[in-house]
Amino acid sequence: MAAAVVEANGLKKQEKGAGGIDGPTNPMVTPLLTDLYQFTMAYAYWKAGKHSERAVFDLYFRRNPFGGEYTVFAGLEECIRLIANFKFTEDEIAFIQASLPSSCEIGFYNYLRGLDCSDVEIHAISEGFVVFPKIPLMRVEGPVAVVQLLETPLVNLINYASLVATNAARHRFVAGKSKLLLEFGLRRAQGPDGGIGASKYCYMGGFDATSNVAAGKLFGIPLRGTHSHAFVSSFMSPDEITEKSLKSADGPNVCEDFVGLVQAWLSKLKWSKLLGGIFGETNQSELAAFASYALAFPKNFLALVDTYDVMRSSIPNFCAVALALNDLGYKALGIRLDSGDLAYQSCEARKFFQAIEKEFGVPDFGRTSITASNDLNEETLDALNKQGHEVDAFGIGTHLVTCYAQPALGVVFKLVEINNQPRIKLSEDVSKVSIPCKKRCYRLYGKEGYPLVDIMTGESEPSPKVGERILCRHPFNESKRAYVVPQRVEELMKCYWPGRSGKDREELPPINLIRERCIKQLEQMRPDHMRRLNPTPYKVSVSAKLYDFIHFLWLNEAPVGELQ
Amino acid sequence: MAAAVVEANGLKKQEKGAGGIDGPTNPMVTPLLTDLYQFTMAYAYWKAGKHSERAVFDLYFRRNPFGGEYTVFAGLEECIRLIANFKFTEDEIAFIQASLPSSCEIGFYNYLRGLDCSDVEIHAISEGFVVFPKIPLMRVEGPVAVVQLLETPLVNLINYASLVATNAARHRFVAGKSKLLLEFGLRRAQGPDGGIGASKYCYMGGFDATSNVAAGKLFGIPLRGTHSHAFVSSFMSPDEITEKSLKSADGPNVCEDFVGLVQAWLSKLKWSKLLGGIFGETNQSELAAFASYALAFPKNFLALVDTYDVMRSSIPNFCAVALALNDLGYKALGIRLDSGDLAYQSCEARKFFQAIEKEFGVPDFGRTSITASNDLNEETLDALNKQGHEVDAFGIGTHLVTCYAQPALGVVFKLVEINNQPRIKLSEDVSKVSIPCKKRCYRLYGKEGYPLVDIMTGESEPSPKVGERILCRHPFNESKRAYVVPQRVEELMKCYWPGRSGKDREELPPINLIRERCIKQLEQMRPDHMRRLNPTPYKVSVSAKLYDFIHFLWLNEAPVGELQ
Repeated sequence: MAAAVVEANGLKKQEKGAGGIDGPTNPMVTPLLTDLYQFTMAYAYWKAGKHSERAVFDLYFRRNPFGGEYTVFAGLEECIRLIANFKFTEDEIAFIQASLPSSCEIGFYNYLRGLDCSDVEIHAISEGFVVFPKIPLMRVEGPVAVVQLLETPLVNLINYASLVATNAARHRFVAGKSKLLLEFGLRRAQGPDGGIGASKYCYMGGFDATSNVAAGKLFGIPLRGTHSHAFVSSFMSPDEITEKSLKSADGPNVCEDFVGLVQAWLSKLKWSKLLGGIFGETNQSELAAFASYALAFPKNFLALVDTYDVMRSSIPNFCAVALALNDLGYKALGIRLDSGDLAYQSCEARKFFQAIEKEFGVPDFGRTSITASNDLNEETLDALNKQGHEVDAFGIGTHLVTCYAQPALGVVFKLVEINNQPRIKLSEDVSKVSIPCKKRCYRLYGKEGYPLVDIMTGESEPSPKVGERILCRHPFNESKRAYVVPQRVEELMKCYWPGRSGKDREELPPINLIRERCIKQLEQMRPDHMRRLNPTPYKVSVSAKLYDFIHFLWLNEAPVGELQ
Repeated sequence: MAAAVVEANGLKKQEKGAGGIDGPTNPMVTPLLTDLYQFTMAYAYWKAGKHSERAVFDLYFRRNPFGGEYTVFAGLEECIRLIANFKFTEDEIAFIQASLPSSCEIGFYNYLRGLDCSDVEIHAISEGFVVFPKIPLMRVEGPVAVVQLLETPLVNLINYASLVATNAARHRFVAGKSKLLLEFGLRRAQGPDGGIGASKYCYMGGFDATSNVAAGKLFGIPLRGTHSHAFVSSFMSPDEITEKSLKSADGPNVCEDFVGLVQAWLSKLKWSKLLGGIFGETNQSELAAFASYALAFPKNFLALVDTYDVMRSSIPNFCAVALALNDLGYKALGIRLDSGDLAYQSCEARKFFQAIEKEFGVPDFGRTSITASNDLNEETLDALNKQGHEVDAFGIGTHLVTCYAQPALGVVFKLVEINNQPRIKLSEDVSKVSIPCKKRCYRLYGKEGYPLVDIMTGESEPSPKVGERILCRHPFNESKRAYVVPQRVEELMKCYWPGRSGKDREELPPINLIRERCIKQLEQMRPDHMRRLNPTPYKVSVSAKLYDFIHFLWLNEAPVGELQ
């Protein structure tokens, strides 16, 4: 395991841990990023001599988010990075000692000193997979005191990652494959790495790019962005532009007065028969801002067109600059709409662009790209689709990154076995009863290639075979059962951290491969599971043997006493 | 300014920056934690020779969160830490260069290389203050390109901090002053520093402690926590406890069989006349877990009492252990309820504790502390109050830290002046029109000591005087105006980063002082602004002079053209 070095700010600089795996992306993810009760329990286990007992915990969620019937699993790599580098510094141990009662024995701190995850074994579903309630996303096995310490950080690292990746996938589903989706949420995210995490996992869930430069650097995510309203307001008039010359795209020709060329185009537009009467005087500070931006980025001119008035000022100003650029061999990228009726405005802008293409013979001008932003979410995307719109790209922020429609996924971490004894957690609420035993999980596929059902079995049961009739039972409802004959059987959990088991360790793929896997996974689902309104629940089941065992345990553990 | 050192993982280790101020708590908060468009704009400003123009931006929000009429301002210290240490590394500059079009001139990167915040001036309301819409929380003044780069990180650092501090304050308001409030949200927070931020700002907003060990270490927040369901399920029976002896609290006496003592108490309870018939056999794995936890923490015994059955197993088991501890001179801390009807269960538990105090003559046993957790929020706390309950402490997680009721605050950052020219951002939606000019802000207090109104004036206007009649106008609604005669006038914004102005820099107080300030601020508000249902909006106004100027500018900037 890596030696952890204490830095001046109390955070650790992680060297590469076991297996050559880097530390967590956020250096604040340390073994102290856990609940105090994990340490009090660890001490109580240690004091009772139980700390090394072999425990198996399942990490799973109980309900799909956003009223949907699927979830995208994300966050695994960060978990493995934590595991591979899990080691207390002396500074951390001193803090734990100061936080626990002074009666705690010193031997415990020596135990913590030697502690790492070399004896922990983790099986997990691969990151980017579509997953469902109750099926373990991770199975964490190891000394009970160690695994308990991991509970909080693992749940934290999976919870938001899976939630926001699912949210991104849902936005992609509504927007459609052909649209460009840009994540613009950093400023509204829940803290700095709420923003960084959002950028990472929205990309994983199917977005195309982010505005977040730090995330671009950390994860290689494509970056997008042009200018804001403040840029427009910061200009007073075209007179303040002193350097007005612009070289042509393909050669040595220089236009000495680009601003004049823009002004000339603006009057041509104003007096044009096709466009006539749409606008009078456009806002001159806006015109100055657009011209200035084009002088800085002649190949990448994209303008925000709602600082003053979209159709009466911004679109004419944009077109004048774009046509001037066109004269010099440059092609403007497009516009961004950020307020008002986006569907209507996009259609009006499109008509204007098409009219210009026709009147001035500028090829492809009618197809100038239109980006829309402003508090977009699944519902507004859906409403835009229903109204009909001409938007090519969506910039989505607040609702996407804060998961406004449901800001938490209820990931839990439950003990399912200790010392080879299966454990069950009962509850009056049947959805909260845990599924005991160290398990294996399979996805069974039907003839059309769609997944039909996920099934959990005991660890030592034979795996389901292709072409065999398999009884799939609802874990708690006796009457819900079905025979399935799978055309393909996929074991869901792979070994991502072998501990001392000697198993091969599954590689952690780069983010773009996880993204591709996720997109493929979403595409292979039967459409009725994916639709926004009344989706069909995907079935999650247990084997007949596991079913019987659950109910045997349940009876054994139920409280004895009077019926109240 | 501090030299920034590049680390192996690409993150910076910050040395103390200007003014001896540490870098941001999260090392991922770097000058790259911004939107790409801040860099494209910076380039366009630089290319136009405008980058050093002096700009003034206001940071504010437009609406109070959670349907309330107040907000707690938090996150300022992290902003100042970023400012004090704002400096690009070569690595970061290389990344920016790779991210911008290759046509961008090399001089720009040299400009970035020399860039810091020594020429930026920041006035801000003090952290922990109660604040209201439209009033600038921060006024950031400096070279337009630099201030623009700061927009995204400043908004990010204020947004969630203020939102979650406000949420904490609202939870405190409903729970009442006398209850202990514990933040338990780390596992459900939006990422690792969503969790760390939540712990910090919930404490600031009036919580008493957190379960988050990392936050305890970073900020000195009191820590709380005992054990989970898994701890209970990990035990099979009392037979597995091998070390059963426990020393008495006050002396050398040793109880050789603490487990036997617990069992003896359990049968006394079972056959007691007062308690008789409430329970039969209690769960033995639970009894083992409680006894074991008490052996580890005899002075800090607090048990989670819903793994099997609260009244038929857990409460009797807890009491047996607590009474055995009492025999040895220890006082059990209490119980935690985590499911079911918390009001009913807390009352039943209280009756049981009181019956024991009476029957066995154990002083104070009736006042054993009851903690409640399980998906609590403002509404459930309110419902518990209405039902009547016996809970002493609340552990609140998901709803608190993810701000489930409203997961984002709409903090914005608007240009209000450039080159001494006031700027206004118009919008068809009047609530989105910005208030121009470099301003001063005052809070005017009435006779009863309550704040009456906040007023914004132009920077050079004379400040309102105590006892003087002051006309306070709604910024956009002509008919809303009132004269106020303040008994006290408080200037709201102080200089937290003087830049080159030579002003004194306001100190950044430690978190416990900010917390006290916040509690005091909340207490001094007139109660009708604070109530949960239909609170009275607090008035935010502008001076007569500023009102006239806003409307003069508005007319000037409005688009010219046909009425459509």
